[in-house]
Amino acid sequence: MWGGRFAAGPSAVMREINASIPFDKALWRQDIAASKAHVAMLGEAGIVTAEDAALIAGGLDQVAAEYEASGVPENWDLEDIHMTTENRLAELIGAAAGRLHTARSRNDQVATDFRLWVRDTVDQTEAALQALQVALVARAGEHAASIMPGFTHLQTAQPVTLGHHLMAYYEMIGRDRSRFADARRRMNQCPLGAAALAGTGFPIDRHATARALGFDGPTANSLDSVSDRDFALDFLMAAAQCSLHLSRLAEEFVIWASQPFGFVTLPDSLSTGSSIMPQKKNPDAAELVRGHSGRIVGCLTALMITMKGLPLAYSKDMQDDKPPVFEAASLLALSIAAMTGMVAEATFRTERMRGAAELGYATATDLADWLVRQANIPFREAHHITGAAVKLAESRGAALDQLALADLKAIDPRVDERVFAALSVEASVAARASHGGTAPVEVLKRVAEAREALGLPKDTAS
Amino acid sequence: MWGGRFAAGPSAVMREINASIPFDKALWRQDIAASKAHVAMLGEAGIVTAEDAALIAGGLDQVAAEYEASGVPENWDLEDIHMTTENRLAELIGAAAGRLHTARSRNDQVATDFRLWVRDTVDQTEAALQALQVALVARAGEHAASIMPGFTHLQTAQPVTLGHHLMAYYEMIGRDRSRFADARRRMNQCPLGAAALAGTGFPIDRHATARALGFDGPTANSLDSVSDRDFALDFLMAAAQCSLHLSRLAEEFVIWASQPFGFVTLPDSLSTGSSIMPQKKNPDAAELVRGHSGRIVGCLTALMITMKGLPLAYSKDMQDDKPPVFEAASLLALSIAAMTGMVAEATFRTERMRGAAELGYATATDLADWLVRQANIPFREAHHITGAAVKLAESRGAALDQLALADLKAIDPRVDERVFAALSVEASVAARASHGGTAPVEVLKRVAEAREALGLPKDTAS
Amino acid sequence: MWGGRFAAGPSAVMREINASIPFDKALWRQDIAASKAHVAMLGEAGIVTAEDAALIAGGLDQVAAEYEASGVPENWDLEDIHMTTENRLAELIGAAAGRLHTARSRNDQVATDFRLWVRDTVDQTEAALQALQVALVARAGEHAASIMPGFTHLQTAQPVTLGHHLMAYYEMIGRDRSRFADARRRMNQCPLGAAALAGTGFPIDRHATARALGFDGPTANSLDSVSDRDFALDFLMAAAQCSLHLSRLAEEFVIWASQPFGFVTLPDSLSTGSSIMPQKKNPDAAELVRGHSGRIVGCLTALMITMKGLPLAYSKDMQDDKPPVFEAASLLALSIAAMTGMVAEATFRTERMRGAAELGYATATDLADWLVRQANIPFREAHHITGAAVKLAESRGAALDQLALADLKAIDPRVDERVFAALSVEASVAARASHGGTAPVEVLKRVAEAREALGLPKDTAS
Amino acid sequence: MWGGRFAAGPSAVMREINASIPFDKALWRQDIAASKAHVAMLGEAGIVTAEDAALIAGGLDQVAAEYEASGVPENWDLEDIHMTTENRLAELIGAAAGRLHTARSRNDQVATDFRLWVRDTVDQTEAALQALQVALVARAGEHAASIMPGFTHLQTAQPVTLGHHLMAYYEMIGRDRSRFADARRRMNQCPLGAAALAGTGFPIDRHATARALGFDGPTANSLDSVSDRDFALDFLMAAAQCSLHLSRLAEEFVIWASQPFGFVTLPDSLSTGSSIMPQKKNPDAAELVRGHSGRIVGCLTALMITMKGLPLAYSKDMQDDKPPVFEAASLLALSIAAMTGMVAEATFRTERMRGAAELGYATATDLADWLVRQANIPFREAHHITGAAVKLAESRGAALDQLALADLKAIDPRVDERVFAALSVEASVAARASHGGTAPVEVLKRVAEAREALGLPKDTAS
Repeated sequence: MWGGRFAAGPSAVMREINASIPFDKALWRQDIAASKAHVAMLGEAGIVTAEDAALIAGGLDQVAAEYEASGVPENWDLEDIHMTTENRLAELIGAAAGRLHTARSRNDQVATDFRLWVRDTVDQTEAALQALQVALVARAGEHAASIMPGFTHLQTAQPVTLGHHLMAYYEMIGRDRSRFADARRRMNQCPLGAAALAGTGFPIDRHATARALGFDGPTANSLDSVSDRDFALDFLMAAAQCSLHLSRLAEEFVIWASQPFGFVTLPDSLSTGSSIMPQKKNPDAAELVRGHSGRIVGCLTALMITMKGLPLAYSKDMQDDKPPVFEAASLLALSIAAMTGMVAEATFRTERMRGAAELGYATATDLADWLVRQANIPFREAHHITGAAVKLAESRGAALDQLALADLKAIDPRVDERVFAALSVEASVAARASHGGTAPVEVLKRVAEAREALGLPKDTAS
Repeated sequence: MWGGRFAAGPSAVMREINASIPFDKALWRQDIAASKAHVAMLGEAGIVTAEDAALIAGGLDQVAAEYEASGVPENWDLEDIHMTTENRLAELIGAAAGRLHTARSRNDQVATDFRLWVRDTVDQTEAALQALQVALVARAGEHAASIMPGFTHLQTAQPVTLGHHLMAYYEMIGRDRSRFADARRRMNQCPLGAAALAGTGFPIDRHATARALGFDGPTANSLDSVSDRDFALDFLMAAAQCSLHLSRLAEEFVIWASQPFGFVTLPDSLSTGSSIMPQKKNPDAAELVRGHSGRIVGCLTALMITMKGLPLAYSKDMQDDKPPVFEAASLLALSIAAMTGMVAEATFRTERMRGAAELGYATATDLADWLVRQANIPFREAHHITGAAVKLAESRGAALDQLALADLKAIDPRVDERVFAALSVEASVAARASHGGTAPVEVLKRVAEAREALGLPKDTAS
Repeated sequence: MWGGRFAAGPSAVMREINASIPFDKALWRQDIAASKAHVAMLGEAGIVTAEDAALIAGGLDQVAAEYEASGVPENWDLEDIHMTTENRLAELIGAAAGRLHTARSRNDQVATDFRLWVRDTVDQTEAALQALQVALVARAGEHAASIMPGFTHLQTAQPVTLGHHLMAYYEMIGRDRSRFADARRRMNQCPLGAAALAGTGFPIDRHATARALGFDGPTANSLDSVSDRDFALDFLMAAAQCSLHLSRLAEEFVIWASQPFGFVTLPDSLSTGSSIMPQKKNPDAAELVRGHSGRIVGCLTALMITMKGLPLAYSKDMQDDKPPVFEAASLLALSIAAMTGMVAEATFRTERMRGAAELGYATATDLADWLVRQANIPFREAHHITGAAVKLAESRGAALDQLALADLKAIDPRVDERVFAALSVEASVAARASHGGTAPVEVLKRVAEAREALGLPKDTAS
Repeated sequence: MWGGRFAAGPSAVMREINASIPFDKALWRQDIAASKAHVAMLGEAGIVTAEDAALIAGGLDQVAAEYEASGVPENWDLEDIHMTTENRLAELIGAAAGRLHTARSRNDQVATDFRLWVRDTVDQTEAALQALQVALVARAGEHAASIMPGFTHLQTAQPVTLGHHLMAYYEMIGRDRSRFADARRRMNQCPLGAAALAGTGFPIDRHATARALGFDGPTANSLDSVSDRDFALDFLMAAAQCSLHLSRLAEEFVIWASQPFGFVTLPDSLSTGSSIMPQKKNPDAAELVRGHSGRIVGCLTALMITMKGLPLAYSKDMQDDKPPVFEAASLLALSIAAMTGMVAEATFRTERMRGAAELGYATATDLADWLVRQANIPFREAHHITGAAVKLAESRGAALDQLALADLKAIDPRVDERVFAALSVEASVAARASHGGTAPVEVLKRVAEAREALGLPKDTAS
């Protein structure tokens, strides 16, 4: 495989550190596809004869069929998926197999295969994220008016609706989708034909192979083509941000499922029990999603470090691009699926949510706002008055709207009885009808827009 | 500042851990701009009177003038830039200042200010990257035909041209620019008006403030608006990839400047001497650029970790978003400027580069390709024959084209005298005229396209 | 400063990227101390005259006094603290100042200074961690028998005591202390005298300077001495683990302070209010500690990346060692202080903790254990029986010990009335008296051991 | 497995996200050993009968024999290695198998198993690092006087010897060994018996199980015991630093093997060829070692992020502790082995190294030092004079010792003919005999000390 130059074979440690076949066999479909596009072009361009091109293409189909049926054999002497396939091709069709590698190198071959793999994975991720958005929008429509405490600093802040809360994640996932779409567009240039690093003297047609493989066109610089792993980093970066979003939702499910919160009952199908505590119902899937975000960020970190300071063109360090990408892709796919199931199947305990929203003086801001609007008090002053009212209520163990009007007037005489209408959680939520606010009417607008964007029918239930 | 509720003041450690004014004062221009947009809208909407709106706007202008003249005062009791400014406003215009904070919260205020800051930084980065591309293209045009060894694994692989090599970085920087542009587009939604987390009951016009601040529109969900730091992560991710590209170029300058390579003489203005070794001329700027990539990746890692698992909406952890972004922005700006200077002013020692290209059997692939084309030998077999020729040449301490024809024929009789024409570095380079290849004619095409894309005049010199 | 070799001065960008004085002035005490030790040795060894040595030492004292009084001047032309000090020394004592740099280089000088700084910081961290342990042990002794729910997966698992819970952090902090101690021991070798990279021909006494600076001895290899930043990484690694521990405690305070939990009231001195919601009391300090762990890990990541793949000996990238270490040290010191205050001053709402422990079937394991012990049922079978009992209790909305004996017997006839004694939270906690278990008697043993280890008087209150 | 509580089984995604058997089967030896220690103690303590204890122990031996012979079966329904083994035990010995899990939980079981695994891996790493040190010392002894250029900033700085350079890595690896030893000592506490989180009511003897498993004693706090992954982080941190050291050595081999340097010929057994360029001999193993450092740091980052902010006690996120540790351990073992082979088998081209040392004015410092010593000129002034001499030599294209005495005297009249003796590379190297300096006599001292520390015979060859 390495030509006639080597006196000694690779030692055992070299075999093990060098062999990428244990992981790069995942690229077999892309490797076959790229080889078929390459040989078709070689035939068209007259670089190999039509007969040889057909023979090779047929051989590649047969190899693919064997892989499909029995998996890719893992022979470390053949090092990687490219040699494994070419070797099997030679067994099947003989010397003509040696013509397939004309005008290409493993450097552009692996760059092409891996880019195709990442592009396929982006497409699958995009579909999975859309499914998660569908689940979010469905539950948000259902709970557009279900009141829960809105938290800042995990302290009860103001009442919001569960639908509004879920739609926040719809927005995050939307940005994730746009990030994957950007990554896809940027990576969709074909490096095949860059050869080892300098291009080739054979009269190849790079536009043809690019077209055949669904790329927008060939890459513009051969050195860059074989040295570039931006496409892998773009994927990992989009994956990392997405996993961080999922980790936030997972954290919320874990907290909401705790006994003191009791905001949600998780589906049995995404929980587990305990080997020792028979009463437990653990939010394992949510915890694993949260944990996986650490590993996905670790994968991104790994590849960034690996690429740091590498001179052009290809260096073998870049073989370490695939394990982190494969691992992150697998963990992200599981994470999205788990959260989609969680969102779709969780039982939200809306009465407990509403009860919690009524504690913690969540409508204090409404009192301050009322003072500004009805009594024309500058906000900063209204904020001080309300602080005093909360302090009084706390000292009495009462809710704000349980204070007597006289008590409120004692704090500030401009308060009158109309204020009580502003202090219910329903009034509070309904009032926040600014664009993007939590008022149910606003939430339903956003849900309707989202359903349309997702191609869903109008939600007649809401 | 915290209303009338607190019995005890913050302790000394709390003052220090809590105060963000030491770093967030960098946001003062954005904070003034956002407040002016907010109060103009409040006036238009009748939420504050026209008189108060004008008074506040005038006061903000005065505060801005003071900051411009004397810097932002750093009073830890006022905690952050928002309180510092509002406090000064109150000193200047009295109680009306208390109306500015109507219908907003620090949560949406800081989200808006910081987003504006990041957007401005993206614009500056874009301009700096364009300047780097201009430098690359200028030197690439100059050296479109200057031959140097192309390396893979830092081993001499095939001859390339220096212009081709520099244009590889033009491509990388182009992707960086597209990444910053994507980030800018995605972040260009205005969170102002989301208030604390739930929107507001005041009849605000979020489209108006968004427009006034140059955003494409308001954000769609108030919880997401105050919880989201994707825009900061998008910036850091683009910055990290860019810094990795710069680290690769920096590594090359360091290696090229070493005595054994001697490919480049660095400009005095970007080198330093030694405190002990008088003969040294160290590539400090390049090394610092390479080192800075570590710190920029560290900044990204920091913010990813900080955001992991945070429940909605705002948590104070998110105050740790600014130091990493500020640090990365500053390091990246310096790094781009340093590399632009390095590219523009380096003296390339082309005769040493060409000499190195002639060592290391860099045209061995050309022999293999010749065998395929002239003798119709399958590539794999040609590769073996060439390996034997290299082995023979090595044993004689000779270059490939210094072998006698008889020697070559002894290895394979199909070789004839025409082969020698293919074995010069000029022939090798000229042959690789596939799209994106290193042939000078191809490099000049890419340079011409790049000059047009950058709005530069045609390079008549080339 | 760079000798007579440079034609052109450094450009503006070079000045800015190269100057380390803005941050390395933090090393001034260590720089003075190391220079004094160096010049004393030069004098002893006769490399400089006794007069010059005394003159230089006196001059250094004067520089130190100036720095102490007025701070370190920041002149970028002088690049770093070493040149700043030597330059001022020359102003003060004239040409003899030029003899100070004999037999050393900035490379070994900065390695020594920074190592001294890190060692000092380790000592301060050690003291701060001990104070945190003292706070933990004090509160643990107070609450050795205060019952709270023990969680796994944030689900109520088994009752534990608050004292036991706090002592878990005592253990973590103990490991942190041992980690800092290991780092200190490993770094306590003196690099001074390694000179630029190769040692020196002057007859220096490296053991003397090592001794004078409190090191265990000189380093063994000059190349390693100037290339090594393990001591900085060891510090950052210990800091990162410590900050992760603090982040876990901070997370618990945030969750415990939420209204649905209500396990703790945070001290006013470590909380803040809201600019818009007057009722809020936010656990800002805890959140910032949690956030800081992200930044500290980011600092570690940064330096690891910066050091990756650097050839020997010193490279300028290594100037990027200080900002991450300085930042991490500052963030860690604040984090430890904040958590010490939080532990010492928090009001634990023990009645709410105890109430929560009685929900969630926390003593189900005690039922299973009872079955094993009293009825000799294999654990796996007992676990199944208990699961059925929990299911029945859940369906009735009852606690386990509220089920009738008949109901339990219907599930398994081997249950008898003695079981009820095992099902109270007190009985559950008291039973777990295995070594390291949560039984108050065990907790008090650990507290007593800890007090002794910390040199505290016996806790007569417990 | 989860008791009688669950109505619905786990869904497909749950099965996949939850199953750890695909990776935790690596723990089987440790799981069997810990179970045997546990059941022996249960028998001793009378918690299970002697008959049951013997039956279980025999069954465990049989399971172990099956695993040894045929591998661990991967049945996802059994989730993990613990359930897989217990399930097989039940098939073999019946109901008594259900008594094994008495007084323990999966939480303390996995904490024990994994700690044992990490401890075993630390021991293997320690042995591998010792072998690397042996290789370094052997080559260093061989090349104690082989002169090469010492670099700073990758610029020729001063001559050093190859032996000295290799001994720098001996020092680094020595620190790595001490770091692993620290980690081992700190982790050597046994968590078994902490049960789920609170300890157990059964009268277990934790000291006995700790002793049986080679631990120094039992852990002190049950909550900490099941929540702690410091031991895994300690391992990863030691691994990360070690891999960074190896990445530096790998970088040097890559640079040294390049044609312009030509300092080393790598062993065929650790190099590869090219699929397209027949002349190539690529330093793949070194590049992969360098790349692996990125992945190992990524593994560390992953686990740090995963642990951040987890409340006590066990959370399922912690299942994500094993893949990064397993991956890092495997990559590190390969990296150490590859570098050991590289050091042991590389052919150093000492004549090229010496030639390079004579270029680049590497002895300029010796001129400055001579001026200080012979002419009593302050170092700073001597440094300036030398700079002028280098400038003159450069302008003439000459080496320093090729300048005429008259030329040197023209620069400074205090120079005399004795100076030339100081300017050879041999003189330069021999002069640097300070402790830890590069003088061959010093290097041989260090080698002798190292050989003794490693238990090697005295190196009579040197």
